[in-house]
Amino acid sequence: MDMTSCSGVSEILGQVGDKWTIQVVIALLEQPRRFNDLRRSVAGISQQMLARTLRALERDGMIVRTVHATKPPQVDYALTDLGRSLSEPVRQLAQWAIDHRTAIRDNRERFDAR
Amino acid sequence: MDMTSCSGVSEILGQVGDKWTIQVVIALLEQPRRFNDLRRSVAGISQQMLARTLRALERDGMIVRTVHATKPPQVDYALTDLGRSLSEPVRQLAQWAIDHRTAIRDNRERFDAR
Repeated sequence: MDMTSCSGVSEILGQVGDKWTIQVVIALLEQPRRFNDLRRSVAGISQQMLARTLRALERDGMIVRTVHATKPPQVDYALTDLGRSLSEPVRQLAQWAIDHRTAIRDNRERFDAR
Repeated sequence: MDMTSCSGVSEILGQVGDKWTIQVVIALLEQPRRFNDLRRSVAGISQQMLARTLRALERDGMIVRTVHATKPPQVDYALTDLGRSLSEPVRQLAQWAIDHRTAIRDNRERFDAR
């Protein structure tokens, strides 16, 4: 399976592999969330980056944005089936990062000390 | 498992999830490769971006750079065990991108036509 030459795949990889996309998908796995709730649960993301990430995910059909007819109206974001289907590869990637965090940190220290 | 709050994880996710990193790892899965061979097999990557991606992968201990004592000396890049351990999550992410490429394209067309 030659994954690098498939047209469009690298562009999609670039998007789904993006660290903010991965973390927003992980945060939405548990439940739909509102904007500020998402912003609190994804450490370090700016308002602008979260808005951009949510728009890209909505455009790809990975999340759905719902405006509730409350006073004032409330908006939340939830994974679609397509978005939820990404959860397994994302979870594996995140788990890999957790499992190898120390080894990578040590390798970086050795490399920088060369 | 709260994957978003682990310190350092999001930074590692940002790196391993990066589209060029994913494609260089995929390209090195088959065999060690030289710089220009890598550049040909990762569609659209610039010389500078490939050099930067390789340096980051080497610094993380994901690849090893070997200078062969040939005339002229030849350099190749190969995955380490740590680098190879990333291959499964990367393969899953790439397969996900291939499987859902058409659905995402259709969703984007619908979104842009709104």
